[in-house]
Amino acid sequence: MKKIQPIILKGTRDFLPAEMMRRNAAMEIIRKTFEQFGYSQIETPILSPAETILGKYGKEGDRLTYAFKDRGGRRIALPYDLTVPFARYVALNYQKLALPFKRYQIQRVWRAEKPQKGRLREFYQCDIDIIGSKSLICEAEIAKIIIDVFSRLGIPDIIIKVNSRRLMDMVLRSLNVSLDKINSVIHIIDKIAKIGDKAAAAELHKIGFQNGQKIFQTLRPEGTNKSTLAKFLRYDVSELEEFFSYCQKFEVLDASLQIDTMLARGLDYYTGLIFEVVSQDADFGTICAGGRYDNLCGMFCGKDFSGIGVSFGFERIMLLLEKLNLFRGGSSSSKVLVAIFDKNSIKDSLEIYNTLIKAKVPAEIYLEPAKLAKQFKFADKKQIPFVVIQGPEEREKNEITIKRMQSGKQKTIPINQMVIYLSNERDFLV
Amino acid sequence: MKKIQPIILKGTRDFLPAEMMRRNAAMEIIRKTFEQFGYSQIETPILSPAETILGKYGKEGDRLTYAFKDRGGRRIALPYDLTVPFARYVALNYQKLALPFKRYQIQRVWRAEKPQKGRLREFYQCDIDIIGSKSLICEAEIAKIIIDVFSRLGIPDIIIKVNSRRLMDMVLRSLNVSLDKINSVIHIIDKIAKIGDKAAAAELHKIGFQNGQKIFQTLRPEGTNKSTLAKFLRYDVSELEEFFSYCQKFEVLDASLQIDTMLARGLDYYTGLIFEVVSQDADFGTICAGGRYDNLCGMFCGKDFSGIGVSFGFERIMLLLEKLNLFRGGSSSSKVLVAIFDKNSIKDSLEIYNTLIKAKVPAEIYLEPAKLAKQFKFADKKQIPFVVIQGPEEREKNEITIKRMQSGKQKTIPINQMVIYLSNERDFLV
Repeated sequence: MKKIQPIILKGTRDFLPAEMMRRNAAMEIIRKTFEQFGYSQIETPILSPAETILGKYGKEGDRLTYAFKDRGGRRIALPYDLTVPFARYVALNYQKLALPFKRYQIQRVWRAEKPQKGRLREFYQCDIDIIGSKSLICEAEIAKIIIDVFSRLGIPDIIIKVNSRRLMDMVLRSLNVSLDKINSVIHIIDKIAKIGDKAAAAELHKIGFQNGQKIFQTLRPEGTNKSTLAKFLRYDVSELEEFFSYCQKFEVLDASLQIDTMLARGLDYYTGLIFEVVSQDADFGTICAGGRYDNLCGMFCGKDFSGIGVSFGFERIMLLLEKLNLFRGGSSSSKVLVAIFDKNSIKDSLEIYNTLIKAKVPAEIYLEPAKLAKQFKFADKKQIPFVVIQGPEEREKNEITIKRMQSGKQKTIPINQMVIYLSNERDFLV
Repeated sequence: MKKIQPIILKGTRDFLPAEMMRRNAAMEIIRKTFEQFGYSQIETPILSPAETILGKYGKEGDRLTYAFKDRGGRRIALPYDLTVPFARYVALNYQKLALPFKRYQIQRVWRAEKPQKGRLREFYQCDIDIIGSKSLICEAEIAKIIIDVFSRLGIPDIIIKVNSRRLMDMVLRSLNVSLDKINSVIHIIDKIAKIGDKAAAAELHKIGFQNGQKIFQTLRPEGTNKSTLAKFLRYDVSELEEFFSYCQKFEVLDASLQIDTMLARGLDYYTGLIFEVVSQDADFGTICAGGRYDNLCGMFCGKDFSGIGVSFGFERIMLLLEKLNLFRGGSSSSKVLVAIFDKNSIKDSLEIYNTLIKAKVPAEIYLEPAKLAKQFKFADKKQIPFVVIQGPEEREKNEITIKRMQSGKQKTIPINQMVIYLSNERDFLV
């Protein structure tokens, strides 16, 4: 038979057991935090009618969306993010949902991008949204969840940058930016971090604004939240103040929140507070972002669902956890390997294994008689902390020997003590 | 803006919160059982080079595979099952794996089929495989895992039909079926359940066998495992006997195993014991199946990986669980809803909520002041068992009122008793 190269596509990944365990551990923390706050998980299809995905992210988004014709000639697309599929989901199912509706969604999305470090073609996003409430309690709860997710992951030093699109609009209007130009101006402000003040001012000039530097000066935040709020007091800052007062009740530290009045977040559909989360421990760019929108499902139905949502970039979070060395290692969930001493002890070893299984001790059996050294090596490679052995001598006395792999120490105990002994062992932590 | 219909494709599904909770609960049991036995989770990409998927499942399989060209002209395919992607994975990564390698994999797969009840275009499979060991301990362990998965799911009355491809070959050879014809004959035997003895015999006739009925008679099992083993004693049944003796050590009941010497399982690559699992509670066809193969990666590399694996049909298992009424209902993970009595109590309610969150009580807060009746209705709709309320009177005395939604009973207690009270409540079970 002609061999086929066992390759995968660039920008997609195989997950080996050790990495998969780390990913699962991180995802479980994220998932549990969402559930703690009453968010319900949903899932949307991967194969989607192309018209429900394309045309929602602008030209660039369309270019980066995987789309194709199926055999029946139907145009199909793969999700580009989880927001548009959620909007489609709400438009189709809202009558079955209890409003306000809080959902979380953890799924893969696809981008037909040139793959590079931290930029994959196939990757996971973790989204939460609340729809059907305009209360600023939502904003504070989202901020609290962001703090809790990262603190439970072991990344406590994060900063939530926050801005009010409403405030930004007011400031820009006061600088004679007309309503129809506001989004274009904000798109240019959004690029300042990348291209600098000067180039941004030049771009503003091109669309008719000579006062670029003035705009930037007026919009720029002060050193602290307090002084920034003072700077903008002559506009309406009650939205930010109410948000901060709720955050205080959630014990979100003021130091974790940073009002950034230049923060723009490209997408036009944000209408209230917007968030962008960065880590102080490492520069991985934005690790979570989102904000309030007025009309989630406008493209799909006439109902008006306002809400707020943020998306956690799972792949970047994993890079950050690895960089901060927050994993203990380990590539197996098993606590015990039951060795098989020789051919004659297969059935006794199976009985020992079955005893562990019944007691719900995560365990595996070496699958055939082999030299003990080989079996120990296997336990070492999989980082299984204990090996249970029963040779002819132990069998005679109804005993077993437990070898602790890290220290190499062995202990022989009666077989009916095995489960208690292994359940009490404290030096097994995932 | 022109509205786009918020549709999904036939054969794909949106999962609403209640169904998602049930799916997660079932999947968690399956996953935990696999991990209990030392299986490591892996994941393979969804977007795959077409040549690593196509041509592995015969003409029909190719026809049912989603395949397309991406914008760069690269041929892409979506996984048709989890076995071929696993073979590709092993061929690419075997040097990094500890052998014998036990993996589990839970992912979506796709079939471009005409959708019908129980037949979707996009669905989940749960696979386990052991590669790198020829020991029959593997077969017994797989049988034990099948029993444990279904028993933990609450479906104890399943039957594992088992056959030996080796035995089948021996019997067919003794009936003058030449080596090159064996697979064609087995394919026809595989169809007997669907088309009946007569039509199957006619098909055998077409490919040169006048002795169809004789073949069926000789292959047919007897009433019990014991008598079937006796019937085939003149062939070599040591493989089945050894398997049964190991199963006994795992306390797999003999009644759960049924030797079915007619069992064929279409795929040609099985070489040892093969399994097919059915439920005695409902006829949903096969809910789990697989067997031993000699050469997993033959199509991808020269290395010879023998192993054994089975695939659990998750969607059929869900149908079975629903039919057997094994879910308790419930559409929220939240145990408590914190009500907001009025506008003046928002911040106090946030403090109460924060106390519950810190104590890891799954809870949510009603997101704005509203009539209590509306908030109770919301808790009812989401099946949240408790509502915590603090009106002006309770606030005065540092108390809260807990309303138990199912009975409608209320109780007022000091606020510092809240967490203990709600953690002790026994009537909350998911």
